[in-house]
Amino acid sequence: MSLQTAPTPAEFAEAVNESMPIAERLFTELEEKTADGVGVTRGSYGEGEQIAHDLLQGAATSLNLEISKDPAGNLYMTLPGEDRDAPAWFVGSHLDSVYHGGNFDGAAGVIAGVTAQAALQRLQITPARDITVMGIRAEECSTWFVGHHGGHLGSRAVLGLLWPGEMESAVHVHTGRTLAQCMDDAGFDSSYFRESNQPYLRPDNVKGYFELHIEQGPVLHHEGFPVGIVTGIRGCLRARSAYTTGVYTHSGAVPQEMRRDAVLGTAELMLDIEKQCTEARASGRDMVFAAGKFFTDSDHHSIVKVPGSVGFAIDIRSQDTVVLEEMQTYVTKRAAEINKRRGIEIDLNEMSLVTPAVMDKGYRAHMQRGAKLLDVSYMDIPSGAGHDAADFHDVGIPAAMIFIRNDHGSHNPDEAMELDDFALGTRLLAWTLATLDE
Amino acid sequence: MSLQTAPTPAEFAEAVNESMPIAERLFTELEEKTADGVGVTRGSYGEGEQIAHDLLQGAATSLNLEISKDPAGNLYMTLPGEDRDAPAWFVGSHLDSVYHGGNFDGAAGVIAGVTAQAALQRLQITPARDITVMGIRAEECSTWFVGHHGGHLGSRAVLGLLWPGEMESAVHVHTGRTLAQCMDDAGFDSSYFRESNQPYLRPDNVKGYFELHIEQGPVLHHEGFPVGIVTGIRGCLRARSAYTTGVYTHSGAVPQEMRRDAVLGTAELMLDIEKQCTEARASGRDMVFAAGKFFTDSDHHSIVKVPGSVGFAIDIRSQDTVVLEEMQTYVTKRAAEINKRRGIEIDLNEMSLVTPAVMDKGYRAHMQRGAKLLDVSYMDIPSGAGHDAADFHDVGIPAAMIFIRNDHGSHNPDEAMELDDFALGTRLLAWTLATLDE
Repeated sequence: MSLQTAPTPAEFAEAVNESMPIAERLFTELEEKTADGVGVTRGSYGEGEQIAHDLLQGAATSLNLEISKDPAGNLYMTLPGEDRDAPAWFVGSHLDSVYHGGNFDGAAGVIAGVTAQAALQRLQITPARDITVMGIRAEECSTWFVGHHGGHLGSRAVLGLLWPGEMESAVHVHTGRTLAQCMDDAGFDSSYFRESNQPYLRPDNVKGYFELHIEQGPVLHHEGFPVGIVTGIRGCLRARSAYTTGVYTHSGAVPQEMRRDAVLGTAELMLDIEKQCTEARASGRDMVFAAGKFFTDSDHHSIVKVPGSVGFAIDIRSQDTVVLEEMQTYVTKRAAEINKRRGIEIDLNEMSLVTPAVMDKGYRAHMQRGAKLLDVSYMDIPSGAGHDAADFHDVGIPAAMIFIRNDHGSHNPDEAMELDDFALGTRLLAWTLATLDE
Repeated sequence: MSLQTAPTPAEFAEAVNESMPIAERLFTELEEKTADGVGVTRGSYGEGEQIAHDLLQGAATSLNLEISKDPAGNLYMTLPGEDRDAPAWFVGSHLDSVYHGGNFDGAAGVIAGVTAQAALQRLQITPARDITVMGIRAEECSTWFVGHHGGHLGSRAVLGLLWPGEMESAVHVHTGRTLAQCMDDAGFDSSYFRESNQPYLRPDNVKGYFELHIEQGPVLHHEGFPVGIVTGIRGCLRARSAYTTGVYTHSGAVPQEMRRDAVLGTAELMLDIEKQCTEARASGRDMVFAAGKFFTDSDHHSIVKVPGSVGFAIDIRSQDTVVLEEMQTYVTKRAAEINKRRGIEIDLNEMSLVTPAVMDKGYRAHMQRGAKLLDVSYMDIPSGAGHDAADFHDVGIPAAMIFIRNDHGSHNPDEAMELDDFALGTRLLAWTLATLDE
């Protein structure tokens, strides 16, 4: 396709709108077939995820797209380009969900990819290179797997990013089967990842990666934009299983100065981190913080005992690696000071630091131009949540993301994405895929 | 007995020492018969408590003491005095324990009473009035009963202190039987407490109440005294089932200023209370504080969610009613301020205020004189923990307490009371009972 023959923005809009029945049908069927009475459940390597893969594969087959799968069970649906040997444009997102999740987190990105492919077919565009839509496995693996493992197991497996032994140390929360066993049970081939010398996906077969996703925060809704062009994905500093040990004693009989109170010491550390966060934001730096878990031991705690233990988790995120590194130093040092003064033992265990993923500047600029041409009202927005896009970025594949406005957060049955907003995002996606090679 | 015929301090010491085999045998048998593999278990209205009552009753029978029981199952072992109609001296403590508890918490006081009675018999003293040792039921009811109820159910029942309906709203944690049903199942008569117009124990049949108990904190050990003469029992201000409601949202995707974080708001309140405690103590006021429970919801919490709920408990104690009242105002006001600023809802539910119980000044002065005469090294000490003595105080029966040094706290299998220390406390108790009427 050359600029001369390119469809007009109005033609792109019309082609996507006329392809929207495909998206609508897929969202409806997906919700019906994976409903769990509360929301939807599509467990990583579980029944609901497979239903989603089968549905998408069926839609892609109807569109005469080429279908393939990789040894981890990720699904590829390809619109052939002029140069079949050139590295492809990838459009991906995940098809699994959390337990009692919503219909859009993940699935919207895959459905947007297929809908964009259908629109390009409708415009009779043969792209310069293959456009492959990828239905990714196990992005929500933190819900479904326990043990020693990182996130995004499906994309990290095929990008060569799994840790040594992670295939065995990630264990399914219900069945106790390892990740390798889960892959094999589902009909795929975990041995590939032990035997292969090179990642299944690499910069020499993936030119760039695009992901459309519902926003998981309220910013677009709050600011009144249907679409966001993502500037970068926040990195994170995490203590997943931190633990404070104090001494259980009588809550009335022991003098205050002789207590070693695990709750008060941990609370102090949390408020100190919050204060750092407030200061960082006041000076224009990006940082958010939550302690999503903070719990005394239900077998031992009591109103008449000074609390002797607290389990907790820390999640600090920033688009700035320096902020995360400084906070790692701060948290470690501050915990040591509190331990000394209070006679307790705050043990952070291993803190993991995942660096931020900056979205490709060229892609972003192209998409910003496109949004204006296509009459898509957008804002630039950081992604607080992690996404498969970060993993592609981490192996040197340029990545970009489109967010769709969503009123009620994600990971719950109330996710509220409007199909009109989705169509605008898909319009921008289709145009971008068709025009980036110009 | 008159001053002229009173035994010398050395004779008191000798009589108690010669009676110590009774105490030693009781402690040994009690531990053997109620051992649970970890510590001892003597549940309120349960098997272990009954074993303890049977053992004590057997020892009292061997000493030819008079035995009786009340409708709540409390045990009375009486050494008859000269005036059988005069209100009696009472010596009491409880015979139940927590789950996996220690051998001394409660039982030491009853055994000290019987040992003191044996020593008085050995000294051939007929007291001016009856001396009754009371084995009390269900002081550890917070471990064994749930539902709406207060503490010390055994003593509060016979002192007329039960709340309306408490007999039915206290429910056994394992069997689901009400307190009334537990009493009846154990062979006693709960109907008495519904039908009787006056308390079973009153100032006109109990002249004064004495309780020996192991210290449940480390102060005597730390200060090097075997015995403490208790100045008063701390009152308490409690929020038993407080709950903070925030909003669960994504821990990366939602801007910090839009979060309603239940953990950080609750942590702030806890540290504010701790600061008040530090200031109160610095200005010479008595106050201790613990939040023994502080827990996010294990069904919903996650490192990737801003925490939307926290359950917690507050236990503030002081010997000064004014401190408790001021703290009630402070906590309520501070919670409201935090709620407003953070957009959360800290709900303290009902806070209960139990006023401190000041030990009788005359008894204390008498015991201080006695300790010096008897060569018992002691210090004045507040009781942080609650005791049955507070309930006697609350109905106008003067009360006093003797603490025995104990290295390892209470409510655990490691309670460490030395029998030599116990003998010193029992010496003081026996002398006090024999001489208060002079």
